Amino acid sequence: AGDAAAGKGKSAVCATCHGPTGVAIAPMYPNLAGQNAAYLESSLKAYRKNERKGGMSAVMTPMAASLSDQDIADLAAYFSTQTLGKK
Amino acid sequence: AGDAAAGKGKSAVCATCHGPTGVAIAPMYPNLAGQNAAYLESSLKAYRKNERKGGMSAVMTPMAASLSDQDIADLAAYFSTQTLGKK
Repeated sequence: AGDAAAGKGKSAVCATCHGPTGVAIAPMYPNLAGQNAAYLESSLKAYRKNERKGGMSAVMTPMAASLSDQDIADLAAYFSTQTLGKK
Repeated sequence: AGDAAAGKGKSAVCATCHGPTGVAIAPMYPNLAGQNAAYLESSLKAYRKNERKGGMSAVMTPMAASLSDQDIADLAAYFSTQTLGKK
């Protein structure tokens, strides 16, 4: 299972676009805060397997390529437990 | 631009997995509530252009294929304005 604290430690590069707690800095990027951990894992693995084209895949595919299963689980645990808050 | 009220009217089929207000019924499906509208549009268009494989693309690609740009904008407007609430 993922470790949210470890995920926080690995989230610096994600925070660049998705924000430090998963509230995206621009509308083109998805919010990750409060998203389902299983879905976050599924998305990261899809990028890692080069299964997603279009959108921001040109950025996300290489990002995900360097992540281990544990990294993915930790990052998913971290962002899924953040609060999106009122828009 | 999208019309949230019109989007609500078109959201019945989405609600099956994503919940009536975008809080997914199962962890494998993404929450849509409070997600950025521009990202929701980008995702639906990626599915519509068959740019996403893996995950639930087998379900989402045909779903998106039948949507017009206006449908996509309305659905994005609707779900993005819903509240995710405390997990």
